[in-house]
Amino acid sequence: MKLNCDLGESFGSWKMGLDEQVMPHIDMANIACGFHAGDPSTMMKTLMLAKQHGLAVGAHPSYPDLVGFGRRSMQCSEQEIEDFVLYQIAAIDGMAQSIELSIDYVKPHGALYNDMMRQESTRKAIYKALAKYHRPLKLMVLATADSEYLTNEASSYGISLLFEAFADRRYTDEGLLTPRSQSGAVLDKVAMLAQVEQLVKDGSVTSDSGKTIHIQADTVCVHGDNEQAIAIVKEIKALCG
Amino acid sequence: MKLNCDLGESFGSWKMGLDEQVMPHIDMANIACGFHAGDPSTMMKTLMLAKQHGLAVGAHPSYPDLVGFGRRSMQCSEQEIEDFVLYQIAAIDGMAQSIELSIDYVKPHGALYNDMMRQESTRKAIYKALAKYHRPLKLMVLATADSEYLTNEASSYGISLLFEAFADRRYTDEGLLTPRSQSGAVLDKVAMLAQVEQLVKDGSVTSDSGKTIHIQADTVCVHGDNEQAIAIVKEIKALCG
Amino acid sequence: MKLNCDLGESFGSWKMGLDEQVMPHIDMANIACGFHAGDPSTMMKTLMLAKQHGLAVGAHPSYPDLVGFGRRSMQCSEQEIEDFVLYQIAAIDGMAQSIELSIDYVKPHGALYNDMMRQESTRKAIYKALAKYHRPLKLMVLATADSEYLTNEASSYGISLLFEAFADRRYTDEGLLTPRSQSGAVLDKVAMLAQVEQLVKDGSVTSDSGKTIHIQADTVCVHGDNEQAIAIVKEIKALCG
Amino acid sequence: MKLNCDLGESFGSWKMGLDEQVMPHIDMANIACGFHAGDPSTMMKTLMLAKQHGLAVGAHPSYPDLVGFGRRSMQCSEQEIEDFVLYQIAAIDGMAQSIELSIDYVKPHGALYNDMMRQESTRKAIYKALAKYHRPLKLMVLATADSEYLTNEASSYGISLLFEAFADRRYTDEGLLTPRSQSGAVLDKVAMLAQVEQLVKDGSVTSDSGKTIHIQADTVCVHGDNEQAIAIVKEIKALCG
Repeated sequence: MKLNCDLGESFGSWKMGLDEQVMPHIDMANIACGFHAGDPSTMMKTLMLAKQHGLAVGAHPSYPDLVGFGRRSMQCSEQEIEDFVLYQIAAIDGMAQSIELSIDYVKPHGALYNDMMRQESTRKAIYKALAKYHRPLKLMVLATADSEYLTNEASSYGISLLFEAFADRRYTDEGLLTPRSQSGAVLDKVAMLAQVEQLVKDGSVTSDSGKTIHIQADTVCVHGDNEQAIAIVKEIKALCG
Repeated sequence: MKLNCDLGESFGSWKMGLDEQVMPHIDMANIACGFHAGDPSTMMKTLMLAKQHGLAVGAHPSYPDLVGFGRRSMQCSEQEIEDFVLYQIAAIDGMAQSIELSIDYVKPHGALYNDMMRQESTRKAIYKALAKYHRPLKLMVLATADSEYLTNEASSYGISLLFEAFADRRYTDEGLLTPRSQSGAVLDKVAMLAQVEQLVKDGSVTSDSGKTIHIQADTVCVHGDNEQAIAIVKEIKALCG
Repeated sequence: MKLNCDLGESFGSWKMGLDEQVMPHIDMANIACGFHAGDPSTMMKTLMLAKQHGLAVGAHPSYPDLVGFGRRSMQCSEQEIEDFVLYQIAAIDGMAQSIELSIDYVKPHGALYNDMMRQESTRKAIYKALAKYHRPLKLMVLATADSEYLTNEASSYGISLLFEAFADRRYTDEGLLTPRSQSGAVLDKVAMLAQVEQLVKDGSVTSDSGKTIHIQADTVCVHGDNEQAIAIVKEIKALCG
Repeated sequence: MKLNCDLGESFGSWKMGLDEQVMPHIDMANIACGFHAGDPSTMMKTLMLAKQHGLAVGAHPSYPDLVGFGRRSMQCSEQEIEDFVLYQIAAIDGMAQSIELSIDYVKPHGALYNDMMRQESTRKAIYKALAKYHRPLKLMVLATADSEYLTNEASSYGISLLFEAFADRRYTDEGLLTPRSQSGAVLDKVAMLAQVEQLVKDGSVTSDSGKTIHIQADTVCVHGDNEQAIAIVKEIKALCG
């Protein structure tokens, strides 16, 4: 089970995340492309760090919303989404290639990720952007109890998926994430580590009602925001081997 | 003598330039990359038009200044310039490759172009961005009476240059452009066509004091802003063959 | 019946609208405040023109979305909306006061206007911004068959409303605008002038099914995009006296 | 001697500065207005904090350069500077008035401050913006050995000045700041406190060559970036009484 983490989310003089500290413990770097974070200089620095740590690199494209950090859904047309996702993929991949890296996958950020999981039109726009790109790129999506539907949908566009689980979020009986608005939606450290262990050993999670839900995940999403987060990443890494 | 033209300078709902009308008459499309103009959807539309008209495609990167249309010099560090030029090149080239095009050259826009011609530090940053890119790209610069110095400087970074002349600007005895602030700096239509004819037939221009100045140009810069501009482009095209 | 028109929607080098030509024929200028259009220099020029033509001036605030021209709904929090509406009102009003004008009203732009008409949370945020401002400002909303509900809601925040009708849009039996996606939603010139005449003489419109709908409007929204639009504005002005 | 500090320099999700911790120890809050930092919600929160701490409030306008944090000089026209300074003043002052505050002064930020001290054209644009505003506002500038020239220049536009000294910078014999590029330009804590003490008691500083330079300062600029900075502010406050 690979560990993926959002990185390169500083912007100009504003710093965010302890990128250098979390990188030794993860496998996959989702790098911001300038639309919610990540100016060109931050992107280049992050790519160089990722190379130094031997990480797989993914584009982390967003709605064009710096002040909202890409967390606010925007009613963009499918064409707009296709075009700005392609722009962001191209920008990060070309920068990566200038230092002999290349991106392997795309993980949409924030509201774009949520809209992708929620509605077909957003997924379609993203599939089209990836299908259009001149090199094959995988798309990272949320692992749910029923991943087959998405796998088939994506493959009709020639896209392969990567499924990610969340260490720190409680799942529903349907294998979806319990909304953050509900109490218990976010797990404490002990529950988080137990959930990761179950994912690794059994390919399952225990839902909020106590059911065992089978979740096939290629990777688990971790965070490098602060010292505490990094301590947890190390423990998750130990479990994931 | 090829004709090059700045294109794709619309932004969102704002339209600029008669791109579709000028494209049949030119050879090289300098396409805005989002920093002074050219949102992702405009970029993709412009690339598709350029493909349809069989044009060579170049990146037209700028300082990050939408409201100033990239026309205001900004005191950026060399590293910042290298990084944002690389970002813009990567973005437009990756979008181009998604429709089986690829960019051949880079022509900096506006104040970045002027700063490049004026100071070594800006050129150095731009050379480094191009040298870093994983495919060789030519750099378009102003053709002056002494092009050898720049040719040598660029080649020390492994960069080849394209030299462009201006149809509509009077040259000084030193083979530079007469500053716009001086009267007679911008040529009328008759003088413009005479200058292009002399450039094509004799490889020279006549300076403001009447001297013959030898200028070796690969391409001449034309404009597609309005109907009159396009009428002139057609006449220049006829002269350039 | 006053005529209101969106103005100052240029941005930097990009021009939009024939502001100078439409101003002699209208009464109220809705001026962009920098978030969907209208950089500071455009705002100042537009304010000076509005003063010269003796127009009432209103703020025309928007979601922060230049590339989308404020036409894409964004899931902002109520607090965010309150704050950015207040910022835009303050900016345009302070600039107006520097030339001895002051704004009288606020008309939200594009998607923010639509969201305001559609959902209470958006209205609440806008009411709060206006209520907070140190001078009383009216809020311009869509005139519908039932304006009392909104009048009461606004007055609970101490806000007075201005109701606007649309010259060029067909109304439903409920006194709402027929969605643009339906055929016949946008009126031709003859139908438009007839609708304005009926509004002025009878305080009503004829719905798409032929019903007479009473609509109490203080102002009618007109457009100054091009020569044709301005010709129509002149005829509407003649009807409105 | 008043203490002034740049505040409200967060932007969206990015935090900068320990505003709440430094506020109890200062007198004047220079608040970012959205062009180098400070989105509308950050501005409102900062204004509310400033009110709570009874601080005088100033606008802290900047060149339009978020990614460069306003630290890069931009070759804007005088008209552009006048207009964007006025816009930023208006925005922050209108927001302030909505909570029964109002701004007293303007301190340009970063590169705009340096350009103001360096060249008359920038000062002229800023004077004109302040003179145009409907309420009188003071302009904060660098206190130098010869402040009379600036005082006269400003008063010809009807503007009063506030002079600020720097606690942490070494002065030249001419009473200017030693450029940061020179060694010893930035003072350590002991030298900083000694300089503030001399400023307060004697109205002078000791230059890099050992001369006593008379500097008439109304206020001293302090920083609230981190815990260490705040500890120093407390000591400076104790000296300034």
